[in-house]
Parts: sequence; structure tokens; C-alpha cells
Amino acid sequence: LFFAEALDDEDTFKILIATDVHLGYLEKDAIRCNDSYNTLNEILKCAKTNQVDFILLGGDLFHENKPSRRCLHSCITMLRQYCMGDSPIRFNILSDQTVNFNTTQFPWVNYQDENLNISIPVFSIHGNHDDPTGAEGLCALDLLSASGLVNHFGHSHSVERIEISPILLQKGSTKLALYGLGSIPDERLYRMFVNNQVTMLRPKEDQDKWFNLFTIHQNRSKHGPTNYIPEQFLDDFLDLVVWGHEHECLIAPTRNEQQLFYVTQPGSSVATSLSPGEATKKHIGLLRVKGRKMNLHKIPLKTVRQFFIQDVVLGDYQDLFTPDTPHATKKVEEFCYAKVTEMLEEAERERLGCPLTPEKPLIRLRVDYSGGFETFNTSRFSQRFVDRVANPKDIIHFLRRREQKEDIKDEVNVDYGKLIKTAAVEGLRVEDLVKQYFEAAEQKVQLSLLTEQGMGKAIQEFVDKDEKDAIEELITYQLEKTQRHLQARGVTTEQDIDAEVLFRDSKKNTTEEENEIREAMNRARAHRLERGDNALDADILDELAEPMDSDEGSVPFPAPTRGRGRGSRGRGGRGRGRGEDCKLMFSKFIEECRCDTRQ
Amino acid sequence: LFFAEALDDEDTFKILIATDVHLGYLEKDAIRCNDSYNTLNEILKCAKTNQVDFILLGGDLFHENKPSRRCLHSCITMLRQYCMGDSPIRFNILSDQTVNFNTTQFPWVNYQDENLNISIPVFSIHGNHDDPTGAEGLCALDLLSASGLVNHFGHSHSVERIEISPILLQKGSTKLALYGLGSIPDERLYRMFVNNQVTMLRPKEDQDKWFNLFTIHQNRSKHGPTNYIPEQFLDDFLDLVVWGHEHECLIAPTRNEQQLFYVTQPGSSVATSLSPGEATKKHIGLLRVKGRKMNLHKIPLKTVRQFFIQDVVLGDYQDLFTPDTPHATKKVEEFCYAKVTEMLEEAERERLGCPLTPEKPLIRLRVDYSGGFETFNTSRFSQRFVDRVANPKDIIHFLRRREQKEDIKDEVNVDYGKLIKTAAVEGLRVEDLVKQYFEAAEQKVQLSLLTEQGMGKAIQEFVDKDEKDAIEELITYQLEKTQRHLQARGVTTEQDIDAEVLFRDSKKNTTEEENEIREAMNRARAHRLERGDNALDADILDELAEPMDSDEGSVPFPAPTRGRGRGSRGRGGRGRGRGEDCKLMFSKFIEECRCDTRQ
Repeated sequence: LFFAEALDDEDTFKILIATDVHLGYLEKDAIRCNDSYNTLNEILKCAKTNQVDFILLGGDLFHENKPSRRCLHSCITMLRQYCMGDSPIRFNILSDQTVNFNTTQFPWVNYQDENLNISIPVFSIHGNHDDPTGAEGLCALDLLSASGLVNHFGHSHSVERIEISPILLQKGSTKLALYGLGSIPDERLYRMFVNNQVTMLRPKEDQDKWFNLFTIHQNRSKHGPTNYIPEQFLDDFLDLVVWGHEHECLIAPTRNEQQLFYVTQPGSSVATSLSPGEATKKHIGLLRVKGRKMNLHKIPLKTVRQFFIQDVVLGDYQDLFTPDTPHATKKVEEFCYAKVTEMLEEAERERLGCPLTPEKPLIRLRVDYSGGFETFNTSRFSQRFVDRVANPKDIIHFLRRREQKEDIKDEVNVDYGKLIKTAAVEGLRVEDLVKQYFEAAEQKVQLSLLTEQGMGKAIQEFVDKDEKDAIEELITYQLEKTQRHLQARGVTTEQDIDAEVLFRDSKKNTTEEENEIREAMNRARAHRLERGDNALDADILDELAEPMDSDEGSVPFPAPTRGRGRGSRGRGGRGRGRGEDCKLMFSKFIEECRCDTRQ
Repeated sequence: LFFAEALDDEDTFKILIATDVHLGYLEKDAIRCNDSYNTLNEILKCAKTNQVDFILLGGDLFHENKPSRRCLHSCITMLRQYCMGDSPIRFNILSDQTVNFNTTQFPWVNYQDENLNISIPVFSIHGNHDDPTGAEGLCALDLLSASGLVNHFGHSHSVERIEISPILLQKGSTKLALYGLGSIPDERLYRMFVNNQVTMLRPKEDQDKWFNLFTIHQNRSKHGPTNYIPEQFLDDFLDLVVWGHEHECLIAPTRNEQQLFYVTQPGSSVATSLSPGEATKKHIGLLRVKGRKMNLHKIPLKTVRQFFIQDVVLGDYQDLFTPDTPHATKKVEEFCYAKVTEMLEEAERERLGCPLTPEKPLIRLRVDYSGGFETFNTSRFSQRFVDRVANPKDIIHFLRRREQKEDIKDEVNVDYGKLIKTAAVEGLRVEDLVKQYFEAAEQKVQLSLLTEQGMGKAIQEFVDKDEKDAIEELITYQLEKTQRHLQARGVTTEQDIDAEVLFRDSKKNTTEEENEIREAMNRARAHRLERGDNALDADILDELAEPMDSDEGSVPFPAPTRGRGRGSRGRGGRGRGRGEDCKLMFSKFIEECRCDTRQ
């Protein structure tokens, strides 16, 4: 699917991909007020410099649903500056534009409007931050759309069913089908997928000649049983999915081995929370598509404020201090001071020769003070960094693992003993846990829980294709991948594996919605059984491969980040949404083991 | 100055003038929600049909400072629909556009932007409803401006001094200097005028060849001592002033005999209060300028909802009922029912053959129930008109003249006896009152009060021109005009003349601002005395000619209407602003006389 040489010829689409610009984020902050603006400017400039054919945005161009006047004004101004001009557009649109661009009274692509001279068309879906509201179902993007500065697409007006009709683009011999779906509440979209209410239309002729690109703005990481969109739900005829909403930059395309498409997650261009995912270096992508091959070149963003995050467990430094050391708190504070200073020095080194990067970095030090330590006065601490750090007030984040576990315990009331019979869990490998689960599950009613998770449309189609054998392979693959994945992150059974991701008990919280889904699942299972297909769902296994949610819940909406930090993990109290009802089984078990080992 | 034949030739500017569109007014009302939108559509369509050279808007295009998404979206859509296209623009701009259009990063007229195909340029100042706010000093208009849909001009960024630099337009041999000044709080602008801080720049060459057009958005009628802009403040080289903000349509140009310019007050295109001024039929203007001659053709707006207002004084119908009549209240209600029905019938007759006019009119019946009558239940009354009237809930407005007077009395604590020595005021003519005032004033310190009102820059220039003789003529003229004016409106001394307009005592409320003004006035007077010019100020006399404020105070901002209703007048409790401190002298006196006569 990939091609190495990045040739810009008459058959190659050159597309700038970016998402989650969050224009206007912290625009009233004394230090960070211009960050999101500077970065949009950089992105548009980059598009112009690279003479791209078009810009593709994955939603949340605006941070606020009702952007401020400054925000709209700046956005309009920048788009007019960079995206209007004389450069000719070298591709055509073959699809019915009145279907593609259905949010304005000008249902055609802006560059074909005879009154506008567009040099770089922008195609954008809306995100959850700038989603349509009100009786008119208009979003902030529609103001740009009405002005002719942006082509808003992927807005489904029906709540009954979604039919995604692609924009069919042709440049030379390359045919690009651009699908988009603006943000929809995850649970609702999940249900619609499960109920076969989501359809992606395909051109009738030359189906295999089209490069199929899909832009979506949903949770990719799991925030609850149905509070995300499993990649498996997406049609497998797709070639590339540009996944918006998730803020961590994972822009290098990863292959979904079940669906056989690639997913690129550009990530936000501004950090809207101080979680590990946001600390990953921010990029945008220069995507080239020629025929059915693609090449994604990632471009680091220079105007993005640096963000360093580090975790320290005070208990790990017994040579320096214990809770009983005289002036322990003072010593801890100085220790943290040194850590922050270190990060600042690293930031300064990295910033050398980057005049566009703002001077003051974002710094977060997460301090696990469990084991009897006391917290120190953070406001005094902040004062010492007020001239060097962009977020002096919230550098330090105190947390106690112990307490967190206790919080989790309160939520756990399932009899996990039935499942895990052996008490000697230490040393148990992940695959053993998984295997054990399946063994247990097959004997019990909990099989239904399994199928609930996995029986999406895509899976069903997968089965329908008589590729049943593939499922077994898939399970094996997933197990291996999961193990590699966890190992790569240093996760062993000694660590508190977030079992929310592994298993859950959905007997509680049987809301109407979930019942609906369960029924659909049962129907699907019946269908499979009828076909004599007893293979287990692969989806549950795939979930093991999902990075765990380490969002700190510092954003107002369902946590958009997908944190994989710098070797550290935290659990947010918020950001779990409906997942709060999930019952954690293994995690508690393992945590208790670890506690035993440690203390 | 006028020319009769309306020729559209290559030397004739054709300008559509409109103001106070108040887009978005009552957009959530079930009945009136589309009114402002339909009328903007009509205005733009009219501009297109008439193939005007440009549209000139006098402010308050938007009703809300932060218009709703629907509002912005509709406005953008309509402007794009009507003002973009292939019709060529047949005039040039000779002035420095970076000075004229200073609110965006595109400081040039939109039709000269090579990326936009503009068929009808819109030039607009901002009003008080859509005025600039925030650190950036941006207003809603600037969003349109940044999008290239409107040319926002007349925005002064300094609070120290205002320099109005005209847009110099040329079409064929006609030279048009377009001046504009966006809304500024009246008191501040008043003070700036008085302090010579307002300058209008003029082209150095061929000064007498330019037609000078000025657009302003301020109180024209007096809402307080300095809470309006006297026409005399405006430079006399002007030919025509397009006065925004005032909602009453007085579009036929009226000559200011002192300044020798004409004023056209197009009025709002939607009624935003149920005051008499809003009941005047709404129009926009088609202004033609050729050389230094003009022709203003008024065009009635068809989409405007009809508004009928009527006053009844229950005490005037003693043949029908008195407070002692059995079932008097019931009879009064039926009487009012008949009156409203009458108005509805009139509305229906008028609406015949006007398919664009909304079906349900606005109806207001002001019922003076003084003299012992009781009010009836208006909600029950409203119920009877719910299907026929657009504002069923507030058709009836009960008021008592007596009570109003008492309200006024509370505000009056000046010893007016000193001024008016004769008790037999009845039959006193207006000019006698004025004469008497001047006689008294000259003997007293109150002379300073007089000069405070009048010593604007324009007057000073007038004097500087050694046209002193003209002042006496002017006084005579104004006296006669005032008398005609009052007589035309049926005002005699028996009626409660609003003496706020006549005189006031400024000894109280000597805020810093007013002191400043007084000092400037004193300087100016000293200057005049130095020149040996003892003529009285003409301005105070001119004020007699000002129509009285009959705004009901039902608008959130300083009352924008300039009510001259259908033969009736009310006094709002609000809308007087700083004028509340003014002391009413004659009015109280005269009212008391009337009371004596009546009872």
C-alpha cells in the first residue's frame, strides 16, 4: 500500500492532514493565549509551502462550540490569507456535490464557486467541540462554509441512519474516495453501527481502483463499554482512516490486521490537558496518494509549546528520604524542584535553534506520595517557576496509588473469585489470564458479555465472507500482539493492569440503550450460530491491544486523549463516562498482589 | 442640490441606503422570528434589482452584539447570494484604503480583492448594538469584513480624538466623499465635539467638486443634556447626512438651515419597540448622486410587519361610560376590543395585494384610564386576539397621565418660580416663554447653562466665518420654525410640553465630564466675547425644533426611536439616561395649568 518515493506528479494527490486544532484554546490565558492561533497559522503556511492539493481536517478546528469573535475573526483571516489565491486546483470532483456539501445554500466545493478564488480547498468534518447545535443544526464550521472558506462535509442530518456518501476526487489517474463522518456521541454511533444503521456507499464501477480514505472524529480508545468506536466497526474496503479526536500524535499509519486498513491518528496540534498523551511530539501529515498507494510524511510542528511530564514515586527514593526523615517535606520539595529544573533544562536544550517554539514549556510532575509522605505547598512551589513555566500553577500533581486503588475497590462488587481459581497469581502471564477467562466464559452465561463487545457489523461481514479460519488466526495474532504491546510498555502482571479494558460485567446498568445493543448482539450471535460458526469474537482480544486511558480528566468533554506517556500511567477519576459502571476484576486482584509484594 | 430626473448614467452614483436592520431581532419568537431576516433579504434583493453601485448601511445590521450562529450564517449566506457575482463595479476609490478600511488584515475594498468576485459592495459603519468590544476592538461586522463580504468603515480606534477620513469615490465625473463614524456613546462623542477633538478631513483639491456624504449612528433626538449629537455639531461642508440609530423612518431629506446640509433618517427596517416612531411606514432609499446634486427615492419595504398604534383617553368618552357606569370595566374592555378590531381591519385592508407582508400585524392600544377607571384583565383580552395579532400579549398598555405627572414632579426640585414670574401662564405663547427665558437668563448666572448647550464646534466655526448677522436671522428662523413645528403637532401651552427639551438646570450632577464640557464652553464663550460677538446661541432655539422623545423605553439600549406617533405622545420612564437629572420647569408648570383646566 505504501510507496517510498515521494513524487509530486500529476497523478499524485498531496494532502495535508491535521486534526484537533482547538482554535481558541486558553485564548484568555496570559501566556498561552496565542498558542492555538500560531499553530493554525503554521499548519496553513505549511500547506501553502508544500503546495498541497487540499487540506483535510479531522474535526475540532474550534475549541469552543461558540467560538469567540477573536477566534472566528482570526480563523477567517488566516483561511483567507492562505487558502485563497491563484494557484490552480488540479483535481476534479466526480460525485454529487449537493449530497457531499449539504450544510449551506452553496452545495458545491468552494474552489468551483465562480465568485471565489480558492488556492487550497479545506475539507473538514466537525468534531465534538464544534458540533452542530440548535434547531438549524449549524456548527461554527458552517459559518466558514457559508463564507466559502471551508468545505464542511460528513454531516449526517438523520438520527435514524447514516449513509456516508464519499466525495469522489480524481487527479490524473488517481481516484480518491473521501469519506467523512462528523462527531456523533460515541454511544449513539456505537449503537448505530451495531444495528447496521451505518452505511458507506461506494462507487459502482471500478471499485478496486479507488483509494478509500475515511475521516472520523470519535473515541478510539475505550472510555466505556460502548463509549468508543472499535476500528472493527469500520468497513474493510477502506484503505486509510484519519482518526480525529484522540490528542496523542500517533500519526504513523498502523495497520488494522482484521480490517486490513491503516489508521493514522494525527493528534491535536495543541495540548488541551496535561496528560501523557499530549506530551508526545505534535505532528501533522503530508499524505500522498497515487493510484492505490500512499505515503505519509510526518511534519513536526514548530510552534507547539513544549510539554514535559514525569512521574515520581516518593517511596522509591528511600536513600534520599522517608516519611520519617527530618524535614522530609522540605526535602521532597527540593527533590521536586530539581526534577522540574531538569525538565526545564531538557526543554531548553530541545528548543535550541527553534525560534518558533514558545519559550516557556508546559511542565507536569506527578508525585506519588503514598507511604506516609506529606504534600508540600504547591503555590509557593509554583512561585519559583513563574518566569520559566507556562503553567506555573499546576506543575505538581499529587496522587496516591493506594487511595486510587481504594477508590477502585469501591466500584468492584463482582465475585471474581469464581473466575480466578488460583490464588497464586503472581507470575501469571497475560495470555494465561486471557485463556482462563475464555475457558470460564464459555462455561458461563458471561459469554453474552463477550459477544456484546464484539459483534459489530464489520465482524459480522468478516464472518459472512466465509473467512472463518481467519478468526482463529486473528485471535492468535491478537494475543501475541497484546502481549508484545504490554511488554513493550513494561506492563507485567505485577503492575496494575487496567482490567476495565479486559473484562467487565454488564449485568448492572442495563439501561434501555444497552438492552437494545444486547438484543442486536444476540440476534447477530444467533445468526452466527445458525451458520455453525462458533469462533469467539476477536474484538475482546483486540481490546487488549488498546492503549489504556490515562487521561487525567482535565478536559471538559469525554477525555479526548489517549495517553501513553513517558513510561508512566495514571488513572483519571473522570473521563471514564459510562465505564464507571464497569467492574474491574483482574486489576483489583493484581493490585492486591502487588500490594502484598511491596509492603 | 436636488435633481428631479432620475437618470442612471455613467456619472450617477446609485446607492441603496438602509439602516438598523437589527438582524436577529426576536429570532426566537414563534411569530416574528423571521421578520428581520426576510427584510434584509428584501433590501439586498432590492439593491440587486436596482443595480445599485453600492449599499450604504448606517449601523446596527445586527441586533445582538454577539449574533447567534443562525444570524451570522443567514447574513453571510444572503450577502454571498446577493452581493457576489459578475456585475462590474463602475466606480473607483481614490483615497488611501489602508486608512479607510482599518479593521481587517485586508485593508482594501472587497471588490478590488482579486480573490473575490463582488457585484455589490456593502459599506457599513457599526451601530451601538453591534459595536466593537474586547481587547481586539472587533465587532460582528468585522467577521463579514474579514470574509470580504462587507466593507466596514468609520471605526475610530482612538478615544483621544477622531479623525474622519473619507472614502473618496469617483464614478465618471462625479466625486463622492463618503464619511462615516461608527457608534460611540453619545456623551463621549458630544464631549469630543465640544472639545474640538473631532475632525473631518477633506481632499485638498477641488473641494467644491465633491459631494460630501456622512453616515452617523447616534441619538438625533435629545435623550439628555449631552446624550445626543446636535446636527449643528456636524461640519457644514457636508451635503447629506445619513442618520442611523433613530428608528422612525424620516427618510425624506430635511434641510438643516444652519449647517446648510440635508439629513435623511431612513429608520429601522424592523420595529424593535411598540412606540409611535416605529409605526411610521418603513422605507429604504435609493440615492442618486450626480455631480453635487442628489435625488433620494424612497422605497417602501414590503416584508415589514404592519404596526398600528392608537391612544384612547377613557375620560373622553363620557357618553359611553364613566367610572360610575354599571359594568364600566366590561364596557371599557369591549370598547378596546372594538378599537383593536378596527385597527386589525385597517391592517387587513392595507395588506390587500401585499403577499410579502406578514399576516398578523403588531397592534398597540395605549389606554389612559385616569379619572377613576379600572384596568381590565389583559391576559383574557389577549386571548381573544391570539390568532390575529403578532403581539397578543402586549396589545394593551394602560397608563395614567396623572401618575406620570407625579412621577415627573418627584424629579423636579428647582425653584422655577424665579424664572416664571407670572402666574397666568395660560395662553402664553411659546415664543413668549422663550423670550422670557432669555431675559431672565441674561440677568443670571444661568447664562452658562445656555452656552453649555450650544457652543459646539460647528457654531463656533459659523461665528468665525464672520457671518454674525446670520445668527440673528437664525434665531428668528428657529423661533418661527419651532412655533410652526409645535403648532403642526397640535401642541399649545395647554399641553404638557416636554420642557426637558426646552431648558434645564445643570447645577446638579456636575460630574467630571460635565465640568470638562462646561470649561470648554466657557473657553468658547470667552473667545466669542473677545470677538465682540454677543449674539445668543442659536442652538438652544434649535432644540425647540427637535421632536420630543416618545420612546416607551422598551428597548434595552438608550431608546433608539424618535417617536412622533399618530397624534399621541407618551413619556418613557427609561431611555432618558443622564437626562433624568435634568430639571423640568416649564412642563410641570404647564401641566399644572392643564390639570386646573381639566378638573
